[in-house]
Amino acid sequence: MKLATLRLPRRTTAARVDGDHAVEIGAPDVGTLLADPGWREVAAAADGPRHPLSTADLAPVVPRPGKIICVGLNYRNHILEMGRELPEYPTVFAKYAEALIGPYDDIVLPAVSQAMDWEAELAVIVGTEARHVSPEQAPAAIAGYSVFNDVTARDYQNRTLQWLQGKTFEASTPFGPYLVTPDEAGGSMTMQCEVDGEVMQQADTADLVFGPARLISYLSEILTLRPGDVIATGTPGGVGHARKPPRYLADGSKLVTRIAGVGELVNTARRDG
Amino acid sequence: MKLATLRLPRRTTAARVDGDHAVEIGAPDVGTLLADPGWREVAAAADGPRHPLSTADLAPVVPRPGKIICVGLNYRNHILEMGRELPEYPTVFAKYAEALIGPYDDIVLPAVSQAMDWEAELAVIVGTEARHVSPEQAPAAIAGYSVFNDVTARDYQNRTLQWLQGKTFEASTPFGPYLVTPDEAGGSMTMQCEVDGEVMQQADTADLVFGPARLISYLSEILTLRPGDVIATGTPGGVGHARKPPRYLADGSKLVTRIAGVGELVNTARRDG
Repeated sequence: MKLATLRLPRRTTAARVDGDHAVEIGAPDVGTLLADPGWREVAAAADGPRHPLSTADLAPVVPRPGKIICVGLNYRNHILEMGRELPEYPTVFAKYAEALIGPYDDIVLPAVSQAMDWEAELAVIVGTEARHVSPEQAPAAIAGYSVFNDVTARDYQNRTLQWLQGKTFEASTPFGPYLVTPDEAGGSMTMQCEVDGEVMQQADTADLVFGPARLISYLSEILTLRPGDVIATGTPGGVGHARKPPRYLADGSKLVTRIAGVGELVNTARRDG
Repeated sequence: MKLATLRLPRRTTAARVDGDHAVEIGAPDVGTLLADPGWREVAAAADGPRHPLSTADLAPVVPRPGKIICVGLNYRNHILEMGRELPEYPTVFAKYAEALIGPYDDIVLPAVSQAMDWEAELAVIVGTEARHVSPEQAPAAIAGYSVFNDVTARDYQNRTLQWLQGKTFEASTPFGPYLVTPDEAGGSMTMQCEVDGEVMQQADTADLVFGPARLISYLSEILTLRPGDVIATGTPGGVGHARKPPRYLADGSKLVTRIAGVGELVNTARRDG
């Protein structure tokens, strides 16, 4: 099953994607839908108004997650690219919901940063409350997968020891287009990030040091994960900052982020002001 | 004016504190109240049921802020204690709402950490939307001040480069008891943190490198601040981790965090499980 959040005049709606149509579910967005323990049945049975997908205006698939938990240094090849050793523990940091944009929205390049960089990522969307769960129990807490680009202001990221300020610029982070349930997404997935048609990142999620189940288990020792929470699992090698010379998004850059079996984000970068 | 969020049987309520009573305002909590642009007038005029403050059960003053933005290395004496130089930019990191507890609730010491430490802080609660505001405009965005203890698992904080995982343990962070509006809180404030009756931290908010107005201005360049957002402005010297030998909270430790003119948190640490 594939779910999306559609923007309609004066409201949004959760929808089930059936082929080339989106069928409305009686919830304002996918985050609200997931808060209903019976969300799978509700979504599967929904028979609301239908919208052609080709003209649909899609919001971030979960527009306001309770938590966005990002993971750094989690692909073997990206860790090597950054000159670091394989970690014993996942590196986690946050992003606020103000950063999220829809799968086809423009990425805002802030006037104050000259170093906005791409980071293609697999997102895991939580579907049930999870606290103190083992890696074996963790898959039951996954509602589905989505595509995420953790676009980062490298100059702000490196201003201080903590990355947050470079990670959470307003309207910087495309997320969507769909929540794809695990049965439909399959196992390891190929991820690709293109800038202006040139492939910058290419990886398989099998290369993750800490996969979705281990991340959920680890995080659930710290705090309660809740339906609609998002875990961005980290980015592979090929970011612009690590290139020689470094390369960043410019006004008009076209960023395509795709994960086979999950979906594709297509976003144009636009300089603010 | 002083505001609080009270726990009542089967609901919570925002309340105005009048002397030794709390007067109900027609909003489920202070966060929801602040989302109403007329919150000052609504709160001032409220004439709902009254509850004696001495027996009131207080929730975190804003139970689920949209954002909790924490600042590190922001007191001159704490920066020197940690062996660092005065910073050019504020260090910011996040905390999730699951970490918050009420002003008199028990602090949960997680079974997995042996190094839970105190960090007394002045919290700024945002009262209006703020984006691209100057330091001169910023004070208008402040709803009020509160007391916050950014209790930190030092072992988890230092597991990786990013502090988040040590900063956001479930039920670790007392916050309250009140939102005190700026006219009532006054200017620079004396802060004190006691563990089992011994003064561990003592500072004046005048010692902040980046004060509330500069923080709001800086953060508003990055993203939109919204009513109910919380900025924890950083802790002064005297944390347990910097002591020789280091000292941490134990089962039964009594932590008192007070800021003159703002309020006092009284919390007992309890080992989980």
